[in-house]
Amino acid sequence: MTTPEIAAMEQRFRTNFINSLHGYKSTALCGTVDAAGIHNLSVISSIFHVGAMPPLVGMLIRPHTVPRHTLENLRETGSYTLNLIHPAILPQAHQSSASYAEGVSEFAAVGLTPAVGTHISAPYVAESHVKIGLKPVEEYTLRSNGCIVVVGEIVELFVPETAIAADGTIDHNALETVAASSLDTYHTGQRIAQFPYPKP
Amino acid sequence: MTTPEIAAMEQRFRTNFINSLHGYKSTALCGTVDAAGIHNLSVISSIFHVGAMPPLVGMLIRPHTVPRHTLENLRETGSYTLNLIHPAILPQAHQSSASYAEGVSEFAAVGLTPAVGTHISAPYVAESHVKIGLKPVEEYTLRSNGCIVVVGEIVELFVPETAIAADGTIDHNALETVAASSLDTYHTGQRIAQFPYPKP
Repeated sequence: MTTPEIAAMEQRFRTNFINSLHGYKSTALCGTVDAAGIHNLSVISSIFHVGAMPPLVGMLIRPHTVPRHTLENLRETGSYTLNLIHPAILPQAHQSSASYAEGVSEFAAVGLTPAVGTHISAPYVAESHVKIGLKPVEEYTLRSNGCIVVVGEIVELFVPETAIAADGTIDHNALETVAASSLDTYHTGQRIAQFPYPKP
Repeated sequence: MTTPEIAAMEQRFRTNFINSLHGYKSTALCGTVDAAGIHNLSVISSIFHVGAMPPLVGMLIRPHTVPRHTLENLRETGSYTLNLIHPAILPQAHQSSASYAEGVSEFAAVGLTPAVGTHISAPYVAESHVKIGLKPVEEYTLRSNGCIVVVGEIVELFVPETAIAADGTIDHNALETVAASSLDTYHTGQRIAQFPYPKP
């Protein structure tokens, strides 16, 4: 399949197809707050590891969809949170992407609980097992389509100690962490292998 | 847990911890070729969706590790491939991250088969179920740690037709697509939900 065939696809079909093409995606609820104190929550499925020290996480935001409040808020307050999703809160998480009216907190609208940390003003999702608090440190606007790449530094985090293995790796099977494969389809994971460091 | 506690972690523990913190990651074998015709292959686990039209995929490359050949080659030839991993080729895929000597093709070293497409010079992994051919269109060097964000436009792709649902979504459960949760741990997925478009 080549560029002309992709371009000729029906728009919704193409969106689903390209969005799901490259497999399972890191997915989280992004929590922010605006200057008036209104909380905002949205699902972000384009999260990527940037570095361990300093601890950095990247994400992509589409400027013309619901998460634009996320972008405005994190710029304004210098903070945001990423909260992992598990099956018990998945319906609420997905629902948080609906286009709620200005001034409505998605926390209240979908039935999730905002929790305040001590180092940042953005709200965490109390129900999430893994909660990551960040400050934005870099931002790039892509020429190709206007999307924004935000790189954040982790300033605070909450993880159940029982889910941290002796080597530091987090057990996402035990936490029932959810990944997305498209805009509307979600999965849990099943560990199949852990390998030693590869040598020639 | 806050910044000083993260900074105080033993280095390897911290690498595993932060790398695995945000859940399952899109993972693929990245194929490139250099000007001398030597093929290169490496595992990339920081792949993210950028846009459906034009069809764009982003990835992060660490400049000081093995995938630096990936970066040099994709710049030189204007092409690279992303090839999804399934369990039958997972040991070979992980092994491709070893530091092989200059001039060694990781394809031959690990036992995977390079396949040539018709629109780009970079090699595909013949054994992969989903093969994506791209040309790099944007590149950003992060100030924080020197990592490179590469955005590529899809110019060619190969997906089994039987894995494409009526709405365009690809069935990664059926394809046994593998995701990484850290540098050495891999998972398959299990679909738990597909939701309608969320409305307030």
